[in-house]
Amino acid sequence: MEIRVAKTAGFCFGVKRAINLAEDCAGGGDGDIYTLGPIIHNPQVVKKLEESNVYARNDLDDVDSGTVIIRSHGVRLDEYESASEKGLSVVDATCPFVKKAQENVSRLLEEGYKIIVVGEEEHPEVQGLVSYGGKNVTVAVSVDELKALPRSGKIGIVAQTTQNIATLEAITAFCLSRASEVKVFNTICNATTLRQAESLDLAGEVDVMIVVGGKNSANTKRLAELCRPIQKRTYHIETACEIDEKWFEGAEIVGVTAGASSPRWIIEEVITTLEGLSDYSSGSRSEKKEGVSL
Amino acid sequence: MEIRVAKTAGFCFGVKRAINLAEDCAGGGDGDIYTLGPIIHNPQVVKKLEESNVYARNDLDDVDSGTVIIRSHGVRLDEYESASEKGLSVVDATCPFVKKAQENVSRLLEEGYKIIVVGEEEHPEVQGLVSYGGKNVTVAVSVDELKALPRSGKIGIVAQTTQNIATLEAITAFCLSRASEVKVFNTICNATTLRQAESLDLAGEVDVMIVVGGKNSANTKRLAELCRPIQKRTYHIETACEIDEKWFEGAEIVGVTAGASSPRWIIEEVITTLEGLSDYSSGSRSEKKEGVSL
Repeated sequence: MEIRVAKTAGFCFGVKRAINLAEDCAGGGDGDIYTLGPIIHNPQVVKKLEESNVYARNDLDDVDSGTVIIRSHGVRLDEYESASEKGLSVVDATCPFVKKAQENVSRLLEEGYKIIVVGEEEHPEVQGLVSYGGKNVTVAVSVDELKALPRSGKIGIVAQTTQNIATLEAITAFCLSRASEVKVFNTICNATTLRQAESLDLAGEVDVMIVVGGKNSANTKRLAELCRPIQKRTYHIETACEIDEKWFEGAEIVGVTAGASSPRWIIEEVITTLEGLSDYSSGSRSEKKEGVSL
Repeated sequence: MEIRVAKTAGFCFGVKRAINLAEDCAGGGDGDIYTLGPIIHNPQVVKKLEESNVYARNDLDDVDSGTVIIRSHGVRLDEYESASEKGLSVVDATCPFVKKAQENVSRLLEEGYKIIVVGEEEHPEVQGLVSYGGKNVTVAVSVDELKALPRSGKIGIVAQTTQNIATLEAITAFCLSRASEVKVFNTICNATTLRQAESLDLAGEVDVMIVVGGKNSANTKRLAELCRPIQKRTYHIETACEIDEKWFEGAEIVGVTAGASSPRWIIEEVITTLEGLSDYSSGSRSEKKEGVSL
C-alpha cells in the first residue's frame, strides 16, 4: 500500500510561532504561565505544554498573576484589555494573519460598513474578530444564514483565516444583491488555500484519505469535509490509535493530510502505523508529495 | 394566441429623462442642437428627434456652436471637458445611475485601487466609465478575459449599469483570488435587474419570446441572450416589420419584452402586429403582465 503525504500537512506559520513563543515562556521561569484557551486546537500539544508547566485557562478570572499567552486564534478585544488591566504579563501569540483580519474588522467599523464575518460563530477566532466590529456584526458560514439580511448601503466582509474560498465567494456574491457597495478583505491565509487545494488533489488520487488533526480543530474538520465529496473513504483522526485496518480493504494508495495545528510527531505516528499495517504488503511511502518540515 | 407583455418592457428612468431633456431643447429654439452620439440606442427614436432638428454627431469636431446634449450613456471625461472648453451650451442627459458609476470609478482611482470595469469594451457607457479611472483600467465581461490579471493589493470593481448580476458576481469571486482587498460598487441599475428577472420568468412561461429593441442596444442584446437558454424560440427585433409568421407555428403563448431604449409606440406596434397575425385565432393580450406606462 503506497502512502502519499501532502507537502502542506501540519503546522502553519502562525501555529509554529505560537508554540515557539509558549516554549520560550516555559523556559523563562518567570512565575506561572497560562494560555488563554488552548494555544492551538490540538489536545496532544496542549498536554505536552502542561508538562512544561504552561497551563490552558478558559477564563481570565482563573488567572491572578504571572504570564498569560494569547493563543494563535486570538481573543476578544475585552479579554485582551482585561489581561493588561489585571497587570498580567501578556505574550501575544495571535497569528499575524488573524491580527490583520482583526484590524480589517476595525477598519470596516470605522468606515461605516455593515460587517459580516464569514466563519463559525462558536470558533474563538471568529469571536475575536466579531469583538472588533462593534455591536452589529453578522456571522455566517453559508448564504442560507443570510437570507434575512436587510439591504444595506455598504457591506464589509472579513473571513476567518482558515475558511474555504468558495464560501467567501458565495457570500460575497450574495451580498452584491443586498448592497450597492461591498468591500471584502480576503483574509483566508495562504497556508489554508494551499493546504485545501493540495488535499483536494490528493483525495482524487487515492483510495483512502486520512485527515489528521484535533477533533476541535475547525480547519481540520473543514479539510475532511472538502475531501469527502471527492473521496468518500475519508477519515478524520486525532492520533494513530484511531486507525482501523478495515478502512483499507482493497486500497492501493492512501493519502495523508493534516490540519494546521497537527504537530509533525503525530503525523509521523500515523504514517508509521499505516506503513506497519500487517495485512498490506509493500508499505512504501511516496516521495512525490513528501517533504514536510516542521 | 395569447400575448404576455413584460411590465418592465421599455424606457427606463434614465432614457425617459434623456428624451425629455432633448425634447425640451428642441422646443427651446436656441440655435443648433446636437447629441454627442445617439442619445439612446434606438435608431427610430434618433430619427424622430432629427425631425425636431436634434442631430446626433459622433465627434465634437463636427460641432462648432449651439447646444450639445450628453447622451444617456454618458461620454468620456475628455469629451465632456472639450464641450465646455469649446463654449458650447452643454445639457447633461447622462443617466444619474451612470453618473454615479462614473463617480465610483473616480473614487476607486483616488483610493488607489486597480480598477476593473465589468462591461463591453466598445460600449460608450463603458468607454465613459473607463475615462474616469486613469491609465490602467481593465475592462472585462467574463472571467476568461481576466485569467492573466496579475495579483494586486486592492482591486476595485464597477459595472456597466445594464450588466447581468451573474457576470458581476463571477468576476468579483475571481478577483478574491487575485487581491487581498476587493471593493465592488454594484452599479447595475434596479431597472436592469427587474427587467432581466421578469424577462427570464416570462421566457419560461411562453412558446415564443420576442425581445424588442435597437440592434445596437447592448441591454436588449443581453436580454435576448439571457432568454435564449430558457426559450430557444427567442427573437430580437427592432421593429414590427421584422416579425415572421413562421416563428409562431404551434405557439399558444407569446412573450414580449423590450430593452431600456425601446419607446412605447414601437412596443405597441409589435403587440398590434402579433394580435393581427391572421393564422392565429384569439389574439388575446394578457392583462396579467400588462401595465407598461411610458
